[in-house]
Amino acid sequence: MKKNILILLTCLVVHGAYAQTQDESTIRQIYDKALTEGRSYPMLEYLATKIGPRLSGSPGAAAAVEWSRHEMDNFADSVILQPVMVPHWLRGQKEEARIVNSRKLGTVALNICALGGSIGTGPIGVNANIVEVKSFEDLRILGEKNIKGKIVFFNRPMDATQINTFGAYARAVDQRGAGPSEAAKYGAIGAIVRSMGSNIEDYPHTGGVRYAPNVAQIPAVAISTKHAELLSRVLKEERDLRVYFETHCETLPDAPSFNVIGEIKGSEFPNEIIVVSGHLDSWDLAQGAHDDGAGCVQAMEVIRLFKILGYKPKRTIRAVMYMNEENGLRGGIEYAKQAELKKEKHVAAIESDRGGFTPRGFTISADDVARNKIKSWKPLLEPYGLSDFSQEGGGADIGPLGPQGVPLIGFLPDSQRYFDYHHTVEDTFDKVNKRELELGAASMAALVYLIDAYGLK
Amino acid sequence: MKKNILILLTCLVVHGAYAQTQDESTIRQIYDKALTEGRSYPMLEYLATKIGPRLSGSPGAAAAVEWSRHEMDNFADSVILQPVMVPHWLRGQKEEARIVNSRKLGTVALNICALGGSIGTGPIGVNANIVEVKSFEDLRILGEKNIKGKIVFFNRPMDATQINTFGAYARAVDQRGAGPSEAAKYGAIGAIVRSMGSNIEDYPHTGGVRYAPNVAQIPAVAISTKHAELLSRVLKEERDLRVYFETHCETLPDAPSFNVIGEIKGSEFPNEIIVVSGHLDSWDLAQGAHDDGAGCVQAMEVIRLFKILGYKPKRTIRAVMYMNEENGLRGGIEYAKQAELKKEKHVAAIESDRGGFTPRGFTISADDVARNKIKSWKPLLEPYGLSDFSQEGGGADIGPLGPQGVPLIGFLPDSQRYFDYHHTVEDTFDKVNKRELELGAASMAALVYLIDAYGLK
Repeated sequence: MKKNILILLTCLVVHGAYAQTQDESTIRQIYDKALTEGRSYPMLEYLATKIGPRLSGSPGAAAAVEWSRHEMDNFADSVILQPVMVPHWLRGQKEEARIVNSRKLGTVALNICALGGSIGTGPIGVNANIVEVKSFEDLRILGEKNIKGKIVFFNRPMDATQINTFGAYARAVDQRGAGPSEAAKYGAIGAIVRSMGSNIEDYPHTGGVRYAPNVAQIPAVAISTKHAELLSRVLKEERDLRVYFETHCETLPDAPSFNVIGEIKGSEFPNEIIVVSGHLDSWDLAQGAHDDGAGCVQAMEVIRLFKILGYKPKRTIRAVMYMNEENGLRGGIEYAKQAELKKEKHVAAIESDRGGFTPRGFTISADDVARNKIKSWKPLLEPYGLSDFSQEGGGADIGPLGPQGVPLIGFLPDSQRYFDYHHTVEDTFDKVNKRELELGAASMAALVYLIDAYGLK
Repeated sequence: MKKNILILLTCLVVHGAYAQTQDESTIRQIYDKALTEGRSYPMLEYLATKIGPRLSGSPGAAAAVEWSRHEMDNFADSVILQPVMVPHWLRGQKEEARIVNSRKLGTVALNICALGGSIGTGPIGVNANIVEVKSFEDLRILGEKNIKGKIVFFNRPMDATQINTFGAYARAVDQRGAGPSEAAKYGAIGAIVRSMGSNIEDYPHTGGVRYAPNVAQIPAVAISTKHAELLSRVLKEERDLRVYFETHCETLPDAPSFNVIGEIKGSEFPNEIIVVSGHLDSWDLAQGAHDDGAGCVQAMEVIRLFKILGYKPKRTIRAVMYMNEENGLRGGIEYAKQAELKKEKHVAAIESDRGGFTPRGFTISADDVARNKIKSWKPLLEPYGLSDFSQEGGGADIGPLGPQGVPLIGFLPDSQRYFDYHHTVEDTFDKVNKRELELGAASMAALVYLIDAYGLK
């Protein structure tokens, strides 16, 4: 008996050592290929610089759908377009703002942009006094008597002391998403929101506004952080300051578009699906290089790497390019809906939507079994800089799969630079580092390899 | 007795919990200050953009000495200049290179720069056939008959599959440092070295060449990676290709310069010293923003943060700006020499010379006691992204303190972007991210705080 146990133990140790070596070696091959024959960088160059901005419903979005379908045809077993109706918002040609009556400075142009989904002011613009607030509580305290007929200026900065900039963003973004409707409840006629940016910059950051039901819709713009500081400073001395702003946004009827889905069929369990994904749409002001061109090309690169390595996954690997993350999430919702209708079995869903920066780890939103299994792979992934598995989270587009019990995983790159570029004209291809992008693609491929090999149960 | 043990244990637990909380709280304060009232970024802006290039012996280097002295006068208890004689090499105004006889392409200009310390060709230049090699072993195989009278072209790229780019650099840089002399041993009359860069780029990377004693000194230049690829490609088809290059470098007599040393006197153990450091000199082509302006301002910021926090260290904290890391290491050597002469007791020396990128950890070169003590602080530092304590190493400038038994510690930022800029015209202030730089300064300050509080024994 003792001898048998010894043999058994020896087998386990040998098998364990073998498996470890095999995993190490496969993961090494994935990184080597990504860093020497990677295509994520030239793919992103095309998407960001040749196609460029691709807001849902725009010609750019349609071009991105066609391009990603063609691109994946080169290496996926099959590529399909999944129809989805998306919001169709247009910024309009002209948007401008200025302080009109400063005794000290006279007329001062302000760098603004309409928030996505906002109504426009039309040619008459909005011209009103400004009331500055830091929170919705400030609105309540000021009340209708101080707000009615004015423009509310939301000016709470992102908290620089948050090490994770996404944490700072999450604590500030209520001003942009819900602020305009909150202000309108007290009779405000316009909203100016301090840009969600980590720094003091010249350019505004756009992003979605969500009008509350049964509340008057008021025009809403983002102001650059530099001009938010200026406006606040001048306001302290001149309480009767007036600002004029003009936008020409319109919302057209929903437009047809698509999620683009490329897959490699599983050799053993073709009905078990692992999703790797990003979102194909971007804001209209941006090349969308980091948000989320990077995530798209990394997801595509995962299946391409498997293909060129000749690695046949046991399970089906799907690269999903969602449409409309930025202003509706229709693609993510539709994908989950179809998955439920077709009773598809998703083993895991991975999303990359935090920029193409140097890899730090993965966020996990799953039960303890899946979570611990992923964490048990840390020794295999840490040599590649993936050491943080501590944060909760998946991603916006894969979120709708959560209620179906699918383990959700977010690729976690370094966060320090993301909100320098997010939703701005500065989110351009040259801000993406080739090696960092490639390492991200390889990191996702390595995780997919492990999930494919061992499952998450 | 049992009761006494219980009380003792309770005290220990309470004290442990208190200490932990106190440490957590102090470290949190350090980061908060660095991220909200930090001066590392504006200090670097001045050093990189107003002073700019500062090769040893140059007016820029002298300006940097004066500037850092003045700057530290604002927050250090005392600032001294430590004299050191440094090499004084001049690039000269003109440097150029071209393929002169391609049947296919005719004359093709090549992007080159002289390597630091190289002799110049003078106005007659070097005009010779090219022999391409990947290693010193290639030289041996080719031998004098194939090399004599020719230009040796060293063209082994940095290995893209190395996750740590410093590892790839270390495995390629023999070509630049020792290559020219190795080629001269076989009668080569010039050397062209592929730039030490992670990417295919237009600009060359300079860096030091070290001529071997008793070997003919031949002119040596770096070629951009893009033109290294071009030259190699054309050479494969046209073996009799000739290249002309011309440089006008000269080496003047050694010049007087200084290490700049600012310190806060320790309140309990003033004779025990903790060094935080960077090097003030840069290559002549570069603003030296990442290399190593970042390290300098981070080291200065450490003592400034202690000052503005009102934190009185028990031990003496010294910010040392070494002179001449790039082409001589004279500052580091002199500092260690003086420390030995004065029998100074150094508790630890920390260096930041890997760029101002997002923090990942610290490298350690010390005995096991010190190493384990630093690693035991990981739970305190990991929330700030400092998770890698696994690598051996200190830094070039603090290296000479090693033989005195001083624990050496290198600040370890992310390495992916460093060799995009290293020793080139692209190492400019705009490549440095404000938050990343500030986080690095805070990381060094947090470590200094812990070493000051607990020692390394």
